[in-house]
Amino acid sequence: MARTDVNTLGEFGLIDHLTRDFPLVQASSLKGIGDDAAVIDNGAFMTVVSTDLLVEGIHFDLAYTPLRHLGYKAVVVNLSDIYAMNAFPRQITVSIAISNRFSVEALEELYEGIRAACDFYKVDLIGGDTTSSPKGLTISVTAIGQGEKELLTYRNGAKVGDLICITGDLGAAYLGLQLLEREKQLWQDNPQLQPDLEEQKYVVGRQLKPEARKDLIETFRHIQLKPTSMIDISDGLASEVFHICKQSNVGALIEETGVPIHPEAQLLALKFKLDPITCALNGGEDYELLFTINPKDIDKIRFLPEIYIAGEILEAKDGIKLQTQGGNMHPLKAQGWVHF
Amino acid sequence: MARTDVNTLGEFGLIDHLTRDFPLVQASSLKGIGDDAAVIDNGAFMTVVSTDLLVEGIHFDLAYTPLRHLGYKAVVVNLSDIYAMNAFPRQITVSIAISNRFSVEALEELYEGIRAACDFYKVDLIGGDTTSSPKGLTISVTAIGQGEKELLTYRNGAKVGDLICITGDLGAAYLGLQLLEREKQLWQDNPQLQPDLEEQKYVVGRQLKPEARKDLIETFRHIQLKPTSMIDISDGLASEVFHICKQSNVGALIEETGVPIHPEAQLLALKFKLDPITCALNGGEDYELLFTINPKDIDKIRFLPEIYIAGEILEAKDGIKLQTQGGNMHPLKAQGWVHF
Repeated sequence: MARTDVNTLGEFGLIDHLTRDFPLVQASSLKGIGDDAAVIDNGAFMTVVSTDLLVEGIHFDLAYTPLRHLGYKAVVVNLSDIYAMNAFPRQITVSIAISNRFSVEALEELYEGIRAACDFYKVDLIGGDTTSSPKGLTISVTAIGQGEKELLTYRNGAKVGDLICITGDLGAAYLGLQLLEREKQLWQDNPQLQPDLEEQKYVVGRQLKPEARKDLIETFRHIQLKPTSMIDISDGLASEVFHICKQSNVGALIEETGVPIHPEAQLLALKFKLDPITCALNGGEDYELLFTINPKDIDKIRFLPEIYIAGEILEAKDGIKLQTQGGNMHPLKAQGWVHF
Repeated sequence: MARTDVNTLGEFGLIDHLTRDFPLVQASSLKGIGDDAAVIDNGAFMTVVSTDLLVEGIHFDLAYTPLRHLGYKAVVVNLSDIYAMNAFPRQITVSIAISNRFSVEALEELYEGIRAACDFYKVDLIGGDTTSSPKGLTISVTAIGQGEKELLTYRNGAKVGDLICITGDLGAAYLGLQLLEREKQLWQDNPQLQPDLEEQKYVVGRQLKPEARKDLIETFRHIQLKPTSMIDISDGLASEVFHICKQSNVGALIEETGVPIHPEAQLLALKFKLDPITCALNGGEDYELLFTINPKDIDKIRFLPEIYIAGEILEAKDGIKLQTQGGNMHPLKAQGWVHF
């Protein structure tokens, strides 16, 4: 029998391949696989659903991730997907598989983090499953949200001429991870060393305790802005631009000068001999939003803090390009996270 | 720091403990943790949500579980929870974590099983996550259903005098598992041996390819029967009777002669020197339904195939009792599945 390694397909390729023969037959299934979240039509409101599976040793390392932060982050990354649909999360389910290495006290810490996220984002924990695992910790979170049908924002709505906007700043979560990995290495080499992360509080915080942009989705409602397309930046800016372009059948121009990078991330990147823009483009885990707007809406966002115009939607034939600080034009490459 | 082993709490105790401080704050969260599924109020319809995490080496053994069957079963066990709310599943999400031991072809088989279940039960696969795992296969399924608010059936509605009903037959899935485990043992001792499971097709089928009782929930609609309480039988009859009694604040009398057991299961139990009624009470994985009805509804079910009256709801002070075939009365004990 043939044996094809999953690496040959990549994460997105594998999902596409495995789910290619699953037609939607229920009238209420408005949107299936292929966006930040699925959409179910309930008449009055749309129900928006997103789910993530986090595996110890793949997505997190308990050597430097406090369980409380892990619980918080596991919730936040799912809520981020709901906000990226321009909807509001209302409920979550959390399932965990644990090896006997975890005590009740350890799980209490994990659930304290989950509860802190529920408190802050005003979502209810309504279900889940708890089971044992032969090895390690696995967390599965499903987030369920609500949105008005006409306000939901998909990946496929970007139009030629739209402005590409980015919230917050990018690359810091990736640099935080590099820093934590380096400290772990140093500590493994010399257990007497005490890590000092004080000077890099910002990047470490971005990695260990990310937030979803609830505030901006609320702002969109206040200023009556509906983005033409939106996606959350979980795999790095480049990967998300590719998703928008592929599903909207357009091209894009990203200007390096328009990509926001925090000064601390900038400095740390140089210290690590990394190009800051590469960290922003391919780093991932920032959980900021990438969205496009009709240029007539520019005045709505022009003076808003933490929203940056980073480029423009082009025709598909123009491709996906990066204009560097020096004015050179390069094709953009999406590397994203590779888990396989 | 204190270290409490999770075994001291048990699965249900652990969930209760970890989720005790999670209040429901969203107006739409109608029912949280503690039933077969959670319920979200969407105005016109209720959205019903259930989720399960299946871990290789804990919930399934690929030595005797074909991946196609595993995919089918992973979906069915979740749909069963939605039916147990007297609602109909409409959508599912499926997330998997896989080690590099799994090829694309192996995953295709898994998804063929998932698709077969989607086809048969008319549910749509609308999302999920695919990631790698350091070891083994983990599957997380979330099922989303719809139901009318006034028809949803909870665990807490049983009233004194209600009749306790059971669908199908019990214990066969457990005996199927014992048989498969024995064959695996024999094969490990002597790899030349070819297992012959032909004569036990029924019990093996009940273990490897269970079905959810969609048919009976449809029947309930036709005959306009609304059970006063309902739960699916996934952990053994005794455990489910305890859940109903605890949440309805009642007692129960189960008559041994009223518990349906398939002849093949009966014979195999004796061959294995097991008491058939113990297999039915504590075996689990049958995915039949346990429900209670007001005695005035008895004529609606009296002549229905595959519905058995197995006892009666008593006052809480009367406890939970089993009347044996010989007429003796014993307190019922719930052992259920212990995964920790």
